[in-house]
Order: sequence, then structure tokens, then C-alpha cells
Amino acid sequence: MSGVKTPIILVNFKTYIEATGDRALKLAEAASKVSLETGVCIGLAPQIADLRMVAQSVDLPVFAQHIDPIKPGSHTGHILPESVKSAGAVGTLINHSERRLKLADIDAAIARARELGLVTVVCANNASVSAASASLNPNMIAVEPPELIGTGIPVSKAKPEVVTNTIENVRRVNSEVTILCGAGITNGDDVSAAIKLGTEGVLVASGIVKAKDPYKVLSEFADAILRV
Amino acid sequence: MSGVKTPIILVNFKTYIEATGDRALKLAEAASKVSLETGVCIGLAPQIADLRMVAQSVDLPVFAQHIDPIKPGSHTGHILPESVKSAGAVGTLINHSERRLKLADIDAAIARARELGLVTVVCANNASVSAASASLNPNMIAVEPPELIGTGIPVSKAKPEVVTNTIENVRRVNSEVTILCGAGITNGDDVSAAIKLGTEGVLVASGIVKAKDPYKVLSEFADAILRV
Amino acid sequence: MSGVKTPIILVNFKTYIEATGDRALKLAEAASKVSLETGVCIGLAPQIADLRMVAQSVDLPVFAQHIDPIKPGSHTGHILPESVKSAGAVGTLINHSERRLKLADIDAAIARARELGLVTVVCANNASVSAASASLNPNMIAVEPPELIGTGIPVSKAKPEVVTNTIENVRRVNSEVTILCGAGITNGDDVSAAIKLGTEGVLVASGIVKAKDPYKVLSEFADAILRV
Amino acid sequence: MSGVKTPIILVNFKTYIEATGDRALKLAEAASKVSLETGVCIGLAPQIADLRMVAQSVDLPVFAQHIDPIKPGSHTGHILPESVKSAGAVGTLINHSERRLKLADIDAAIARARELGLVTVVCANNASVSAASASLNPNMIAVEPPELIGTGIPVSKAKPEVVTNTIENVRRVNSEVTILCGAGITNGDDVSAAIKLGTEGVLVASGIVKAKDPYKVLSEFADAILRV
Repeated sequence: MSGVKTPIILVNFKTYIEATGDRALKLAEAASKVSLETGVCIGLAPQIADLRMVAQSVDLPVFAQHIDPIKPGSHTGHILPESVKSAGAVGTLINHSERRLKLADIDAAIARARELGLVTVVCANNASVSAASASLNPNMIAVEPPELIGTGIPVSKAKPEVVTNTIENVRRVNSEVTILCGAGITNGDDVSAAIKLGTEGVLVASGIVKAKDPYKVLSEFADAILRV
Repeated sequence: MSGVKTPIILVNFKTYIEATGDRALKLAEAASKVSLETGVCIGLAPQIADLRMVAQSVDLPVFAQHIDPIKPGSHTGHILPESVKSAGAVGTLINHSERRLKLADIDAAIARARELGLVTVVCANNASVSAASASLNPNMIAVEPPELIGTGIPVSKAKPEVVTNTIENVRRVNSEVTILCGAGITNGDDVSAAIKLGTEGVLVASGIVKAKDPYKVLSEFADAILRV
Repeated sequence: MSGVKTPIILVNFKTYIEATGDRALKLAEAASKVSLETGVCIGLAPQIADLRMVAQSVDLPVFAQHIDPIKPGSHTGHILPESVKSAGAVGTLINHSERRLKLADIDAAIARARELGLVTVVCANNASVSAASASLNPNMIAVEPPELIGTGIPVSKAKPEVVTNTIENVRRVNSEVTILCGAGITNGDDVSAAIKLGTEGVLVASGIVKAKDPYKVLSEFADAILRV
Repeated sequence: MSGVKTPIILVNFKTYIEATGDRALKLAEAASKVSLETGVCIGLAPQIADLRMVAQSVDLPVFAQHIDPIKPGSHTGHILPESVKSAGAVGTLINHSERRLKLADIDAAIARARELGLVTVVCANNASVSAASASLNPNMIAVEPPELIGTGIPVSKAKPEVVTNTIENVRRVNSEVTILCGAGITNGDDVSAAIKLGTEGVLVASGIVKAKDPYKVLSEFADAILRV
């Protein structure tokens, strides 16, 4: 997976104003610095409009936040997998809880990404949806209980059973997929807890993007990973 | 409307592979040349991933193909109006027949675009939907019968009554909105016919993007506009 | 409009358990009694699964809560206009804020309903969406600010300007459409206020369905209408 | 599963006019006669507006064509699982290719159906989606290649590998779920072929609904099942 290695900290920029345009670039540079200093892999998922600019500016793996399960053609206003690939993405989120897809479209989006060599991170809201997603053979699964997203209440500490059930259910159908968790992750302890539960990384958004000093919090995340 | 003037040729790049990445740039340059040579306004609607690159490369008004009716925040995988504005767009298509929106979302998307000073081009499939759209006070309406899109059968010649009915219905509710038409427009005659019917420009996609020589066809379009 | 007259109290059963199955029937009977006693028109919008049973049991105009803009054919799981007509509906809600439609689909749903002689009540969230809807020539418009739905804070008293702006905007494009308002209507005063603002009735849900004694509250509503 | 046994012929009425209102009833009676005569289980999936009438008229297991993954409440225009249960349904289709759901909604719809004791038949377009669906533990999976639906080209003969791959993939994650297949099934041979491939029944629509004599074709289907 082009530059992607585990454990990974995957930063979802969402459509936060703090991570739009020039501010996306600044955040990417902070992440790049942390990755260089610690050796920990940090993936970035900026908005589509900022994707090329971010990919050209830093040497980190860049992900789209979404692709549509389409081939080139008449699909005005949709996200063509080829377009994000050509803009420098090495992978993509699929089915984030804020951009859920129909099951057949998750299957088709994974197929299209695979065809183009894009790393797929399918997001899931619970253990059973994680297993269903894993059975479609993406590269990674990220389980995020939607009720914790953006709350600062870390899944890895508040709902560890969601994470362990996910790992258990996923492993029954897929022994290889990388498993991440997310939602409410805001400090190094939350990251350590996630890794100790058996995940290979975290998907994080507001915890980094809305931090006063993203560099500092990302450094703490990376250190937590190194210490586990 | 920032650099936008009428009559206008608005080129929708859709998700055609011929207008993705580097090829989007090439197409934009051809359009730029025609606009410089003829003085006719040519708007470009590339894919979101190519928007900033295109906007930075040519001095033509660039449009997003779609925006979501959202404010900055937790909207992973969506198109934030601020993000396309910051990438250099001066306007946006809304409700293209390949990316139709709920009525309340068209209303909200227009409101968000207006807030940011983005020119709005609402697409509509017939005269009554055009009038409903026009009552929401966008800057432009583009009527396109979906059954003709991509066929090479020009709306302006095959279904002139759709265009004239649209103008009539729209004018009953809105005396100022710019009216474009599209679908099947492939040569200068189709463009002339559209202008003679009372529109102030055309929305075109495959007729330009899939032309062997887009520069040549765009020149023909521009000449047709100058001759009317 | 088959049995429909104004002023009207239109009761949306939503998917409240208090208005499902046998309890839908009981509610319909209470409404029927009030209508017989007062002469005020009360329309009922039960769930699709209860529609035929309700229509066969009471002599009130029955509405579907939604129709899909489809013709008979391969549309598994959708609501065919013919099916609700054949089950006894005389009309249908379209575009309720809990079941919003794409603009082109509102247009098509109105056309299909008209074809079958079904009375159309298009719901809208604000004055501009109301006007856009009215330009499509439905029989009725019901404006409901979604933020007040289910709150018990009556639109007619808390946001009278939404109602008066709606009437003003709608009348600019359509002089005939019946205008209702809804959201938060829970007592006779709210109904009187709505009528005094210039509407010809109310769309109501929880205020009736979740009332301890729906018969009593409906009677109060009807009396308020008669007193205005 | 209340009255449901395998092998099963599950007849999807779709929104065919030949299976709407009174004609739904006639079709149900034909099916009932065949089931009584042959002992073969025939399930019926009429439109929601006809569900109660059909369920009250015949002693066959009746299915909804769709349920929404909702609890009682403010969901105007949606299909509440309780409403179809109360109308007499013993089960429901979920995720038919004409009514596809988001993955998390399939999971939630299965959970809601299970809570109410409704038999779940999740439809899937290919082997991998079938396996993903099966991992969510519905009662049945029905695989239907969408490109064959309504064509009269039987999946069981034209694409037997879709059926066998589905069985293989599904069994890897779920040893108990009943597997059906559908699309293009129009005569007894197609049914025999489906059973021989290892399915426990067929999902059929136009082959029965649009047959000149549904009783005759259903009899042929039932005989084919008995002969295998």
C-alpha cells in the first residue's frame, strides 16, 4: 500500500473550516513534521478540492474522503476514482458515517479502488457492519460508533467492547484486513488504549483538526503509538 | 458576477476521462485560447479534484459541478462551498440532472453560494422545474431535457418548445435570471439556434469534451455567438 | 377535490405507534365524529399499510403520506400512485420534511397525482420553497418550519412571519393554490391564529395523534375554525 | 419462521399494475390454490397498500417489499416495521435491487425485523454482496443479478456461476441462512435448475405477475420443485 504502513494515524479533515484551503496545507505540514520526527505513518484525508495541493506539498499518504462507485462518463458532480488518483491520492475512505453508501455501492467502490491501486478504508458504525464490510475485502476497516464521533469521549476507553467485538467479528470473515478505530480520540492515552485493544491505528478528526496545536497533539499520538 | 458575462459557453467536464487531471488542464487551455481570440465568455466546470489546478492555470471563470448545502463542520465526503471558493471557483452548477438535489437543498445551496459570492447555475429538466428553480433567485438557469443529454441531438433544434416554454415560464416568476439551455449541443448551428430562441448561452459537455479538436469546436461555438 | 373542502384540518399520522394498525382506526373514528358534529373537513394521512382500512372505515378524505413519482412497473418497495388511489386515498402529501424529494421528483409526483385525480399537498420548509412548490401547481401547499415540528411551539404564533411571507411569496406565482401551515399546532388558539394569518387550514400530527384525548383536541380545533 | 418453509417460491408483486389492488387479490388467490394443491410454500410480497387485504384473504405467508430501519415516531412517508407486522406480514424483503439500502440501514432493518419476529429476505446483486449480507444474519438471502431481472433470461441457466459462487461465499460466513436466487425465472426448468444448483427456492416477479395465466405458471414452478 503505497507509503501506507501500520500502525497508522489517519486524519480526516472533514469539512472543517480549520482544515480548508490554506489551513489544510498548514495542517498537512504539521503532520508531516510529526511523521518525519517519529517515523509513525500519518495519513491525511483532506477535502477533494484540496487533495492535489496537499498531496503535492507533503510526503505523506493522502486519502480521499469518498469516491463514487463510477467509471469515467456522465456523472456530473460525482467523485471519479481516477480523478482522486490523478490528484495524488493513494487511498480513500469509503462509507464514512457522514457519507454512507448503499451496500452494492461499497462493493463497487472497493472494486474500482482496487482496479486503480487505491488503498480502501471502509468505515463502519458497529461490529456487524464492520464484519460485513470486511467480507468485501477492503484494505482497512475503521469502526466508529457514530454517537461518539466529535464528542471527545474515546471509543477505545468508553466502549472498548465495540472495538474488541469488531476485531472478533471481522477476524471470523477476514484474517488480513487492517483494523482501525475512531471516534472521540483526543489524546495519547486514547491512542494507546486503541492499540492495546488490538487495532493497528486510529481514525481521527476533530481531536487533531480542532486542536489548538495540532502538531503537539499529533506528536502525543505518535509517541503513544511508539510506546505501546 | 466575477468574470462571468453573457452570452456564455459553459463547459461541463463531467467525469469524462478526456477531462480528468492533465487532460482537464489541456482542455482549459484550449478554451482559454478561444476566449482570448473571440472575446466570448467561456466558463469551465471541471471535477472538484481538478478545480484549483484549472483555476490557477487559466483566466476563465471556473465553476464547481456541485456543492452540498452545508456549512463547515462534520460532513466527511461532501463538497463544502467554502472549499470550492477557496480553490478558485467563481460559481457552481446546482442540481445537474446527474446530481439532482432535494428542493429544500437547492434552496439552501443557493443561499450558501450567495453568502460566498458564488454564481449559481441551477439545472432543470423541463420548463416547470426551471420556473420553480428560478423562483429561488439563482443567477442562472440551465434547462436540459435529460433524454437529449449526450445524444448529439440538440435541444435548440429538436425541442425548441422546451426552450421557449422555459423562457416563458421562468419570466413569469423571475425577470432577471440568465437562461441557458443544454443537451445535444455539438456545433455552431445548435448554438445559434439556442441564442435565437432567447437564451443567453449554452451548457455543453460531450460536444466539446469528446470532440477530436475541442479548440476547433469551441471556436465554432464562439463564432456562432458573435454572428447572431 | 373529492370530499376535500377548506378550511381543512389535515392530520398526519406519521409512523407514530399511537396511530398504527388498530389505533389508526380508532383515531380515524374520533376524527370522523368531530367532522360529523362540526361540519369541518378533517383529512387523514395514515401510514400506507393502514390506508385502505382507514378509507373503508370512515367517510373522511384520506391522504397518502407520500407517493413515488413512478408509473406501474419494476419499482419494488416504492409507493405507486395507483396503489394508494385504489386503496381509497383521495390525495397525498408530497415532500414532507421527513420525506423530502428531489425537485424534479416533486414535479413528476404532482403530474402523476393529477393524472389520477389525487389532491396534492406539497410540504415546504420556508417561504421560498413554498413559492417554488406553488409554481408547480399542486392543489395545496403546507408550510412547516422543520425546527418547530413536534415541539408544541406553534408556527402560527411563534413564527407568524413565516406564514405571512409564505402567503405573499406563493401568491406572486400562484393565485389559486390552497395554503396550509403546520408545526407545533396543539390547541384551538394555534388554529385560530393560523386562519387569521390567511391560511385555509392546518397540517397537524403529534398535537392530535399524541393527545390524551384526540377527539377533544380535534373538537377544539374545529370549533376554533368555526369561530374565526 | 411463521408459515414460511423451504423450498419456497417467493412472488414479488413489485408495482406492476397487474398486481395492484383487486388484481393483487386475484393473484394471491391463484397462488393460494397452487400452494394448497401442491403443498409447496408460496410467499407473496404485494405492495404495502395491498398488504393487509392480501394477508387477510389468503393463508400464505405475506412479505413486505421493504421496511425502513426506523422505530415508531416522526417518519412521515416511511414504512414502519410495526405497520407491516400489524397488517399481517410475516416477513419482508430488504435491499431489493430496486430499493437498495445503505449498509448500516440493512443492518438496522434486520435488527428491527428480528425484534418483531419478521422473517428477513435480504436481496443482493452478486456473490460478494450476498456474503456481506449473510454476515448480518438475516433469515434468507436472495441473489439476483440486476442485469437479468425482468428479462426472461434465467439466472439459474444463464449465470449458474453467480448462484454457485454465492452459495460458496455465503457458506463461508453463515452456515444457516436460506439461499434463494432470482432474475429471469419464467418456467419450471428455470426453477429446477435453481434448486439443483443448491438454492432452496426462487424469488420471482414478472415471470408470474405478467404471465397470461399465473395459476398455470405457478403450478409448473411448484411441480418443478416437487420433482427435483
